[in-house]
Amino acid sequence: MQRIEFQKALYALQQEILKMGGLVEENIARSIDALAKQDLDLADKVFEVEEAIDRLEMQVEETCLRLIATQQPVAEDLRKISAAFKIITDLERMGDYSVDIAKVAKRIGKEPLIKPLIDLPRMALLAQKMVKNALDAYVSEDQELAASVGQADDEVDSLHNQVFRELLVLMMENPRTITQATYLLFVSRSLERIADHATNISERVIYLVSGQRIDLNV
Amino acid sequence: MQRIEFQKALYALQQEILKMGGLVEENIARSIDALAKQDLDLADKVFEVEEAIDRLEMQVEETCLRLIATQQPVAEDLRKISAAFKIITDLERMGDYSVDIAKVAKRIGKEPLIKPLIDLPRMALLAQKMVKNALDAYVSEDQELAASVGQADDEVDSLHNQVFRELLVLMMENPRTITQATYLLFVSRSLERIADHATNISERVIYLVSGQRIDLNV
Repeated sequence: MQRIEFQKALYALQQEILKMGGLVEENIARSIDALAKQDLDLADKVFEVEEAIDRLEMQVEETCLRLIATQQPVAEDLRKISAAFKIITDLERMGDYSVDIAKVAKRIGKEPLIKPLIDLPRMALLAQKMVKNALDAYVSEDQELAASVGQADDEVDSLHNQVFRELLVLMMENPRTITQATYLLFVSRSLERIADHATNISERVIYLVSGQRIDLNV
Repeated sequence: MQRIEFQKALYALQQEILKMGGLVEENIARSIDALAKQDLDLADKVFEVEEAIDRLEMQVEETCLRLIATQQPVAEDLRKISAAFKIITDLERMGDYSVDIAKVAKRIGKEPLIKPLIDLPRMALLAQKMVKNALDAYVSEDQELAASVGQADDEVDSLHNQVFRELLVLMMENPRTITQATYLLFVSRSLERIADHATNISERVIYLVSGQRIDLNV
């Protein structure tokens, strides 16, 4: 009976994490949309959703602690909860990076973009998918899916390097682009970091399932 | 008796965290030193120490889990361990940022610096002190000390804004400085982020001591 209770509680915990992950995914997409479409209301919406993400993080944290205190799980069950505890930290950081991107959208405002944004939205799409897959891998304890997140990370890294080089060239050719270009550099970096955090989650899933500490982030 | 056992174990846990924090502090200083003095061997040392930091993180994590499993702490004791669990994540991130700074030192290599580095080392010194105070506040459960970390964060933020503006001006005046200036922008951002993570730790200490969730990072 207690076992069934615990399984139910764990299921509820995972649903909370998926909900948090859903909001984070949405906010990544929203922040890049706000930037690419220069939609400042959408940027404000990012700040709003961020508050909901932060509240969910605290809620999941309390749930973890309550579960540990009341159910006193050991071994695998305890590892699952400690994974949850770490995963929400990664999700919350991704949320912060989306806020950074939305802040850039607000700063650039309505001034003409120095280049059409193509690679940044692609990076954002990849990053979103990484978050989704990493969380699906956590819930289903799917090691292969977790490993695939590491592969997507390589793609994001190479897009980041490409964007970085392009923006440097643009700045050198036309110093008037410098301020905006540095903002876009930060956006690219934020997306690259979001992808890193998704990779962290995958590594944790692999640790949870196999006991192996691996580094997908190389 | 069990209570004394737990207190001993908690003390050992805190010592491990302080050791990890010490390495993180050192590595912040080392990375900025490597950059300012263009000492590439010192930059390599940062990568080496980072590995030790990562190992310590895992060790503390295992200690937390073992403590929870064997001592089954509740209430305040459980909160202390969960704080430890989160604090080491912040420390590990700070370690990552030091590595980022060391990578910039390697990239810039021996090419002449575009400006003498004054504010960046000042930011690094402030950030180090914030890490130290945040961890001291954790161990001694000193709410006032924790709050002071938030004040230092404002100072780091304002230095970051200043560095940002200076570097933009430099790039506009002389496009040949652009590549290095963007690297230095990232360093400034990394230091600002290290300070944010120290602030996170302080907020967690305040939560631990008072039960209040506050946002020092505004």
